[in-house]
Amino acid sequence: MSFNGRLLMANIVILGAGVMGSALSVPAAAGNSVTLVGSPLDDAIISEVRETGRHPGLNVDLPQSIQVSTASEQNTAAFENADVIVIGVSSPGVDWALVEIARYRAKPDVLALVTKGLVSGAGAAPQTYAQYIDPQLTSTAGRIVGIGGPCIARELALGIPTRVSFAALQLSAANDLRDLLQTEYYRVTTSTDITALEACAALKNFMCIGVSAMYTAYATEEGHAKNPLAALFNQAVLEIDLLSRWIVSGVAKPDVDDSDEFSQSNRTLSAFDLPGMGDLHVTVGGGRNSRLGKYLGSGRRLQQVQRNEMHGVTVEGVDTGRQLSAGFQAACENGELDAHVLPLTAAILACIDQDLPFKFDFSSLPG
Amino acid sequence: MSFNGRLLMANIVILGAGVMGSALSVPAAAGNSVTLVGSPLDDAIISEVRETGRHPGLNVDLPQSIQVSTASEQNTAAFENADVIVIGVSSPGVDWALVEIARYRAKPDVLALVTKGLVSGAGAAPQTYAQYIDPQLTSTAGRIVGIGGPCIARELALGIPTRVSFAALQLSAANDLRDLLQTEYYRVTTSTDITALEACAALKNFMCIGVSAMYTAYATEEGHAKNPLAALFNQAVLEIDLLSRWIVSGVAKPDVDDSDEFSQSNRTLSAFDLPGMGDLHVTVGGGRNSRLGKYLGSGRRLQQVQRNEMHGVTVEGVDTGRQLSAGFQAACENGELDAHVLPLTAAILACIDQDLPFKFDFSSLPG
Repeated sequence: MSFNGRLLMANIVILGAGVMGSALSVPAAAGNSVTLVGSPLDDAIISEVRETGRHPGLNVDLPQSIQVSTASEQNTAAFENADVIVIGVSSPGVDWALVEIARYRAKPDVLALVTKGLVSGAGAAPQTYAQYIDPQLTSTAGRIVGIGGPCIARELALGIPTRVSFAALQLSAANDLRDLLQTEYYRVTTSTDITALEACAALKNFMCIGVSAMYTAYATEEGHAKNPLAALFNQAVLEIDLLSRWIVSGVAKPDVDDSDEFSQSNRTLSAFDLPGMGDLHVTVGGGRNSRLGKYLGSGRRLQQVQRNEMHGVTVEGVDTGRQLSAGFQAACENGELDAHVLPLTAAILACIDQDLPFKFDFSSLPG
Repeated sequence: MSFNGRLLMANIVILGAGVMGSALSVPAAAGNSVTLVGSPLDDAIISEVRETGRHPGLNVDLPQSIQVSTASEQNTAAFENADVIVIGVSSPGVDWALVEIARYRAKPDVLALVTKGLVSGAGAAPQTYAQYIDPQLTSTAGRIVGIGGPCIARELALGIPTRVSFAALQLSAANDLRDLLQTEYYRVTTSTDITALEACAALKNFMCIGVSAMYTAYATEEGHAKNPLAALFNQAVLEIDLLSRWIVSGVAKPDVDDSDEFSQSNRTLSAFDLPGMGDLHVTVGGGRNSRLGKYLGSGRRLQQVQRNEMHGVTVEGVDTGRQLSAGFQAACENGELDAHVLPLTAAILACIDQDLPFKFDFSSLPG
């Protein structure tokens, strides 16, 4: 599988047959052997793909060359031969995916993470999934790759140009995965900025709620006002930068071998690039976080919306806020964070923690 | 007019009664004496404001306390007493405004610039208007203030929350102007980053053309594709940063007295803040640059559009491209700029310089 240090024609297992995991199978199938394994919630999707070739959520035909499988089927060979495993579930499925990888004793060369979210640090800075996952799950430690950037799954599956970032403590892991997955339409930049990338990818969902409130908070005859939307888009990126730096500052230098390729940068270029700014752009453009934000901007409260219009709908930005909250409050009190430059974070957390109406005071913005 | 080093209740002259100059009169009139002087093209606007109190372009009543005047009326007292003069015309009117200031021998404490544009450097980096204007026009040199950030004029005039940046070589000039103009809804940050702010404010119009092409270049059943739009929004901000740094690098350290307040930073924080990222967000959301970009994205060429759908419409991003072009080509050849990391700039210039169809190759993006 390895040639000149690069994987070619790898065996790739994607865990989770929701829209994002399944969409990734499209570029992945160009030159690799791909097995898409549904989570326990994906049985109906797998059946439909088997019968029709079409993914019902994406409404796109998946490549005929891929294997599909349910969670309960025997996937021993696929896991044992996996060069790359992609965790493609949403946050509630991460533990299932980790159990599967352990159960089959898979030792992939690269473990990639599409899942976005934070894990509460119980009063300290939250962790990213890349920190939360045992680094020994890959054959060589440090070869966990975070994937971030603006990517609507259906557009990727349709072959529409999409640009994302891959990051890993070992840059070679990000580069190897890029060489396997990159196509003419799926374009990849790589870096070692994994913690920041993972933090930005989660935080952009959270910030999207507050930015999207500006679609409904100020109306003009022409529709929604655009100055407040742009002001809070801008502010959201600045706050993603500050929060992701704080999350990165909590990372202990991991134990990896090739120190020359390892770069534990304190910068979070990710905030001002595809995983932060770029992905926030697409997220504010539509989706569940944005939909919730629009309700909050019109004066409704989170619990009202969750009991009515968005009953049963998982909003990842709310989950991220819950994981963030205790650590954020503690860090503002102990001086690790300066609450004065994070007014948007505080305004969104007030909705999530206390079910208050969304209220953003523009005169609270730093001068 | 001065108290504790700050201007209070100043006499403010705004030159140009188009939408932006006129909108600024709304926050300016809260606590100051404001005279709005129309350009030679604004006579009909001034008549209508006099008759009805309403600005026809903004469709908003202007504050009753402001004085309005045509270009041909005698404005000696207003200019002689002006503490602040705001150049509020669009680029073609800048020379008229400068002639007026010189003709009346005005010596304002602060000269503010709302006009966005670049002046060709004839093969070298283009200049910003703040560099182009004689620094001796203000009573103390270095008190020219650039204004940038996401601000649709009508929304400002309606009192909708708007956040912008003021920058001056002398930070005190930016702070003084902020103290005069800031209201609850018009929020101002200040810095010394004037050249970068001015460069970003012009470049965002230019970049908007290429970003907005993504509204029409890739369609899905749901409407326009969002992944390419976000990817090019992101790329546009990165290229604004590179180009604004190049423009800043061409600035000789100006001759100002108070060196402690002067900071000729080589950073262009402006690109990743309100004058770049924030203003690009609003500009891509609508307006003439965006409209042109949508035509180009659908396969039409600049000259076709300018002869037909947008006949007689000034598109500032095109003017900015023309001022940028020769210097950009030369800088790519002599190594001042790296063309490989500026593919969006090159793609837009190909439309402007050679009337080619807009074509962006995503695989040309750096890895």
